[in-house]
Amino acid sequence: MRLKKVGEFPLIDIISKQANTSHPSVIKGIGDDAAVVSGNSNRCLLVTTDILREDIHFKKSFTTPYLLGKKCLSVNLSDIAAMGGTPFCYFVSISVPPEISLNFIKELYRGMHQRAKEFNAVLLGGDTVSSFKDIVISITLLGKTKKTSVVYRNRAKKGDLIYVTGYPGESALGLLMLKKDKNSFKRHSAVKKHLDPCPRIELGKALADKKLANSMIDVSDGLLADLGHIIRQSKKGAQISLSQIPLSNSYKKECLKFSKNIYKPVLFGGEDYELLFTSAVPNKIKIKHLSKKLGVPITCIGEITESSKNIIVLDSSNKKMKIKNSGYRHF
Amino acid sequence: MRLKKVGEFPLIDIISKQANTSHPSVIKGIGDDAAVVSGNSNRCLLVTTDILREDIHFKKSFTTPYLLGKKCLSVNLSDIAAMGGTPFCYFVSISVPPEISLNFIKELYRGMHQRAKEFNAVLLGGDTVSSFKDIVISITLLGKTKKTSVVYRNRAKKGDLIYVTGYPGESALGLLMLKKDKNSFKRHSAVKKHLDPCPRIELGKALADKKLANSMIDVSDGLLADLGHIIRQSKKGAQISLSQIPLSNSYKKECLKFSKNIYKPVLFGGEDYELLFTSAVPNKIKIKHLSKKLGVPITCIGEITESSKNIIVLDSSNKKMKIKNSGYRHF
Repeated sequence: MRLKKVGEFPLIDIISKQANTSHPSVIKGIGDDAAVVSGNSNRCLLVTTDILREDIHFKKSFTTPYLLGKKCLSVNLSDIAAMGGTPFCYFVSISVPPEISLNFIKELYRGMHQRAKEFNAVLLGGDTVSSFKDIVISITLLGKTKKTSVVYRNRAKKGDLIYVTGYPGESALGLLMLKKDKNSFKRHSAVKKHLDPCPRIELGKALADKKLANSMIDVSDGLLADLGHIIRQSKKGAQISLSQIPLSNSYKKECLKFSKNIYKPVLFGGEDYELLFTSAVPNKIKIKHLSKKLGVPITCIGEITESSKNIIVLDSSNKKMKIKNSGYRHF
Repeated sequence: MRLKKVGEFPLIDIISKQANTSHPSVIKGIGDDAAVVSGNSNRCLLVTTDILREDIHFKKSFTTPYLLGKKCLSVNLSDIAAMGGTPFCYFVSISVPPEISLNFIKELYRGMHQRAKEFNAVLLGGDTVSSFKDIVISITLLGKTKKTSVVYRNRAKKGDLIYVTGYPGESALGLLMLKKDKNSFKRHSAVKKHLDPCPRIELGKALADKKLANSMIDVSDGLLADLGHIIRQSKKGAQISLSQIPLSNSYKKECLKFSKNIYKPVLFGGEDYELLFTSAVPNKIKIKHLSKKLGVPITCIGEITESSKNIIVLDSSNKKMKIKNSGYRHF
């Protein structure tokens, strides 16, 4: 059977079942935004890794090497944010053609270093190898936190409210703009969001430290796909309302020029690198305060329901919508 | 300037200089086989990462997916061995075309899992993404050890004897055989060494725990290139004798059919994944005993000299040889 018939997530299941993943020092292995490894007393280490490939994850013509470097690290930082952790150190392996300019590489790393500096992460190693044509960037990032502060995907509780940060769908709109006319839209906020997303480290850590999130994930595959990970792993269901999902003014103004449906980029577009979390109802006011304090929009978009493992999406007339797509498919 | 004019190691220097690499928890960052991060009391964490690319590091037609998986992990395990550590957990990111068979992927991971099992390492995460054509495998491996046991590259002392394990050059000969006629030689020990190298974990750890190595590295770039890393980082020189370098009987029998010079694969061929270490003269007998106990050939091939930063190679008549090449160049 070809891999494309299997799909990414069933493949991960197959790989995990084959492997030995149990070890006395391991708190969480495969299946969350980062692995969690036991450290000294109440401390633990978070480890996440991502591989980005030219023309699959990024196009050189859409971005600059500096922004590409920033984004590559942000993708990993966002995973640490989703666990409630603090970034610590990272390792970068790149495969690039020998014909590439030294300046491209310097700018790529300058972008990573700049982003790393904002969150006090240090570069500790990596690998540099040649390629025939395209660029591959693989980053492993280690974070730290307290064992009792880690927020997992699989702890959503029935009745939890579902919150999302920022404005999901903006990154997907930015990509649509770049695909249509990269020069005309290069200064649009959606394009900026797509090329230079900012990981929600401070917020993720605050939610974790204040015990305000029962479950959390970052929105990388798309809002529905990532909510799907939470409910499947938590063995729960979810109901969300389109009318509650926050759309920025510029999104509302521009979206229909690029997408037939205004909610398609919101529900299925990935790479938002926003946080999606669930929290008990009484935390509502504390979350509002936190949103104000950190200047990050946090919006309740629905609630966790009993163990259906399904997501019900209500349209603007509160009718159940039929959902077909489910985010980006690698295979 | 194009990257190919810069070269891999100057590039690593440029990247390191650009980056912030200092952090109170970091004992060693860029520049050794693995990074060393401070843990609980005398414990520390070792982190190494490698990226392997189809048709640069391996050819599917030369190996099986099972052996490829084993080798990918061995390359990382060998780095942990060279620091004197014990493997702990690993993270695998792969980029593969959607047309690849599920069986190929299962076998690839089965190989990794098998090798991991031999050394009690567990798989804790990774990433799986598509590619247009070729396979990329990026592995990050974490190991553990005592802070006081870590063996670095940069601590070689003048007068240290230089030792190498196994028979360097066999892997390079194996590759030459595969390139010439992969079917006729597939059962030859040199081909086996190339496709299925065994990392020297037990020996590395024993040398470290017994304080028998002042400096250590694994032979991945080639004997001279890797000895070069030791002497440059230790600010020393080295003198080795060709006549002391161990050659296996099968190597001696076959090598000249594939290489004009019997010592070229030994000095410049990479991927041996043997250990190269330096040790004070009085340890000679202890090293001999250890070699016998673990069944691993360990041979003295020369000694560390004063701070010339050069390697002098003596030929079989004890004359200084002129050295031109210096191992595999990625760029």
